[in-house]
Amino acid sequence: MNKNINIAIVGLGQIGNYLYNELNVKKKDIEKKTGKKIKIVAVSAKNINKKRKFPISKKIFYKNPLKIFENVHVDVVFECVGTSDGVSKKIVETALKNKSHIITPNKALIAKHGDSLSKLAEKNKVNLEFEASVAGGIPILRTIKEGLATNKINKVYGILNGTTNYILSEMENSQEPFDKVLRKAQELGYAEPGNPKLDLNGFDAFAKVRILSALAFNNKISKYKCIMEGIEKVELKDIKIAGQLNYRIKLLGISEIIDNKLFETVHPCLVKKNTYIGNVNGVMNAVITEGKPVGESVLQGEGAGPGPTSSSLLSDLLSILRGNIKYPFGVISNKRKSIKSYDNNNYSNSLYLRFEVKDKQGVLSTITNRLAKFKISVKRIIQTPDKKNDRATIVIITHKTKEINIRNCLSIFKKNKNIVKFPTLIRIYN
Amino acid sequence: MNKNINIAIVGLGQIGNYLYNELNVKKKDIEKKTGKKIKIVAVSAKNINKKRKFPISKKIFYKNPLKIFENVHVDVVFECVGTSDGVSKKIVETALKNKSHIITPNKALIAKHGDSLSKLAEKNKVNLEFEASVAGGIPILRTIKEGLATNKINKVYGILNGTTNYILSEMENSQEPFDKVLRKAQELGYAEPGNPKLDLNGFDAFAKVRILSALAFNNKISKYKCIMEGIEKVELKDIKIAGQLNYRIKLLGISEIIDNKLFETVHPCLVKKNTYIGNVNGVMNAVITEGKPVGESVLQGEGAGPGPTSSSLLSDLLSILRGNIKYPFGVISNKRKSIKSYDNNNYSNSLYLRFEVKDKQGVLSTITNRLAKFKISVKRIIQTPDKKNDRATIVIITHKTKEINIRNCLSIFKKNKNIVKFPTLIRIYN
Repeated sequence: MNKNINIAIVGLGQIGNYLYNELNVKKKDIEKKTGKKIKIVAVSAKNINKKRKFPISKKIFYKNPLKIFENVHVDVVFECVGTSDGVSKKIVETALKNKSHIITPNKALIAKHGDSLSKLAEKNKVNLEFEASVAGGIPILRTIKEGLATNKINKVYGILNGTTNYILSEMENSQEPFDKVLRKAQELGYAEPGNPKLDLNGFDAFAKVRILSALAFNNKISKYKCIMEGIEKVELKDIKIAGQLNYRIKLLGISEIIDNKLFETVHPCLVKKNTYIGNVNGVMNAVITEGKPVGESVLQGEGAGPGPTSSSLLSDLLSILRGNIKYPFGVISNKRKSIKSYDNNNYSNSLYLRFEVKDKQGVLSTITNRLAKFKISVKRIIQTPDKKNDRATIVIITHKTKEINIRNCLSIFKKNKNIVKFPTLIRIYN
Repeated sequence: MNKNINIAIVGLGQIGNYLYNELNVKKKDIEKKTGKKIKIVAVSAKNINKKRKFPISKKIFYKNPLKIFENVHVDVVFECVGTSDGVSKKIVETALKNKSHIITPNKALIAKHGDSLSKLAEKNKVNLEFEASVAGGIPILRTIKEGLATNKINKVYGILNGTTNYILSEMENSQEPFDKVLRKAQELGYAEPGNPKLDLNGFDAFAKVRILSALAFNNKISKYKCIMEGIEKVELKDIKIAGQLNYRIKLLGISEIIDNKLFETVHPCLVKKNTYIGNVNGVMNAVITEGKPVGESVLQGEGAGPGPTSSSLLSDLLSILRGNIKYPFGVISNKRKSIKSYDNNNYSNSLYLRFEVKDKQGVLSTITNRLAKFKISVKRIIQTPDKKNDRATIVIITHKTKEINIRNCLSIFKKNKNIVKFPTLIRIYN
C-alpha cells in the first residue's frame, strides 16, 4: 500500500457528510497512527447543491458515483448510500472489482449480499469492512472477529436498535403513548422523519442479528424465515402493567445455537427491571455474547447517529491503513458453513398476554379453558375492570410454553365477540 | 511469516497450564482462521514434576527458559510468570531480541517496563501483545487501539479488579465482615491464597489504570505519584450504611484528562445503586470509555481466571498470526508524548466520612466546626448511638471538596481523645 491514500465517499447524507468532515479534521491523527496520508479525491451524491452541515468541495463532486473509477485511482471507498440493492450494491461491486477497499455502515446490503460481496473482496484481495453496520459506535464485529476470536460462542443477543429503545424508554418516562413519542423521536432525529417502519417493525435489528450470527458462528448469512416482531403493537398500557410487575419492555435481537441449530429472532420482551439489559435505556445499544472460555461479555454504547457511526467507519479505515487485510467474516468464505435452522415452533417462553374483553360473565373462563386445552399453564392473572365502558383488561402471565401452542391457541380469539381486540402477546425473557 | 509457527510457554501456573491445553485443543480452529499451523515446541517452569491439571510434555520442558532460544527457533513466546522484573523481564527482552513475538498477561511488567519493551519490540519488528493484562477476557486494549482508534478519549474508568469487587459484593450479600469474606474468596480461588495484598491495596488495579492511560491518551506510561487506596479499610458497617443511603461501595480505577493534564487514581467509591457501575457485581470487571465522537462505551466481562485470560491471550495470538504487526501502544514509541500530572490536591469529590466517637456532649460540634474551618460543607449527618458502649457513629456526607482541604482537616482528629479511630473516608462518585 502506498503512503498516499485516495478516498471516495459515496452518499453525503447525515453520515457521509459528517464523515467527510471527520476525515479532514483527523488527517494528522490518522497519519500519526498509520503512517499514511489520506486525501478525499471524490464525493458523490444525488444533489450537489443540497444544504449540508459541512460544506463539500464541488471540484471533486460526481453525480454518478461509477464515473469516479474511470477518472481517478481510489484506495478506499466509503459507501454511505444505504440501500440493500440498487446503487449501493453496484458501487460496492464496482469498487471491489477495481481493487478498492470498501467501508460501509449499510446493514441492509451486508445482511442481504454479504456472502457474495465478501467472496468478491477475497478474490480481489481487498477489505470489505462493515463495523458500523451493527450497533453504531460499539466495535462489536471487531470484538467477535478478533477480541473473542477463539471462543466458542453459543449466543449473541441484545438491544440492537436505538430508535425503538428510545421510544420504549421514553414511553415509560413520560407516560405518553406510542404515536406521540414517535413524533418526539422524529423531531430529535432518532427516528426517520419519513418512513420509520424499518426501525419499528424489527427489520433493522434483524439485519444486524443476521450479521452477528454469521460472525459469531462462522456460518453463511442465513435466509431462514424467523420470528420478527417490532414494537408497533406495544401500547402505553403494556408498559404500565409491565412496570407494576417489575418489568420493562425491550426490543431484543437474539441469535443462538440450540441443539446445534441456528435460531434467530427479533421481538419485544419483558425483562426484569433489576437486570443489566433492563437498564439499557434511551438510544443506547448493548450486545451480550456468551462464549467459552470467556464467559459473558457485554458491550454497550451509543447505537446510532453520525458521531458513533463515524467512529466505527474510521476504525475500519485504520484497520485497512495498518495493512490488516482480512476475510470480511473472520474466516475465508469457502470455510463458512451452513447451519440448519432451529424449528421456530419449539421456541419456548413464558408469556405476557393482554386481553381486552367485554365485562361479561364467562369470558375469563373461556380464555382460561382455551389456554388449558393447549397445555398453557397460567402463573398469574390480573383482571382490571373498566366499569365505565363495560369492559375489562385481563393480563395473564403464563409458564413456559412453545410457540406452536400459543399460535394455535390464540387464533380462535379472532372470532370471539367478547374479546374486543386480538390479544397482545409479549414474550418474557428469562 | 512461515506456515508453521513454533510456540513456547514460560510459566505453567494456573494460566500457563490452561493455555497449554487450549492451544492443543484449538489447533484446528486456529489453522482455519489464520492458515497457520501452531506447535508448542517448549515449555518452562520451576518444577517439572508439579501436579498440574493438564499434563505437559516433559520432552519439551526447560528448567531455564533462556535456554529455549539456544535450542529451537520460537515464533511466539507466552510469558506467564507474572513478575514485574526478574525472570519475566529477562525472558521478554531475550525473546524480543531473538525476534520472537511476545504475548503476556503480566500487567506489573507492562506498567513498569512497557515503554522500553515496546521500543525493543518495534526495533526488532515483532509484536508485544498484552490484551490479557487488563480486565481479563474483555478485549478493552484492542478496542481502544482499534475499535475506537480515532476517537478523542478523555476518560477511562471502571472496575478493574475482580477480587475486590467480589469481596465488596459478597460482604453486601452475606452481611459478613471483610476477613471472613476474604477467606471465602481465597477458598474459591478469587484471591491469592498466600498474599492477596496487591489486589486488596489497589496496586493491581493501578497497574491497569497506567496501561489504559497510555493507550487512551497516547502518552508514555506515567510514573506520577497518585492517590491509590484499596479496600482494606472498608468495613461491613460502611457497606450497610451506604446501602441505607442507596449506595454501593466499589473500587474504581480512573484515568482522566483534566485541564489537559493526566489524573490517575484508584480508590473505593460510593456509587448509586441504580447506576450501571453500581450493578457490576461479583468477579465482573467493567471498563467505561468516554470519547468523541463515539460517546460513552461500556465493556463488561469476567475479569479474571484462566478461561477469560486465555481468551485474551489467544486473541493476541490470532492477531499476530494474521500478520498484524503493530505498535504495542497503538502509535510508534517516539510519537508517544508525556502528559503533565494533574495536581492531586485539586481532585474534588463529595465525601462519606464515618467517625466513631465517645458519646459525649460537644463531639459533634468539634467535628462540624473543624469541617467548617476548612470550608467543607455538610450535606447530611446521621448519628447513631451505641448506648451499651457509650459510643456513637457519626456519618457525614459532604458537598464537593478538594483533597487538600480534607487532608488538612482530618489530620487533627488523630489526636482527639473523643474520636476513637481515625475517620473512614470514602469518596462519592458522581
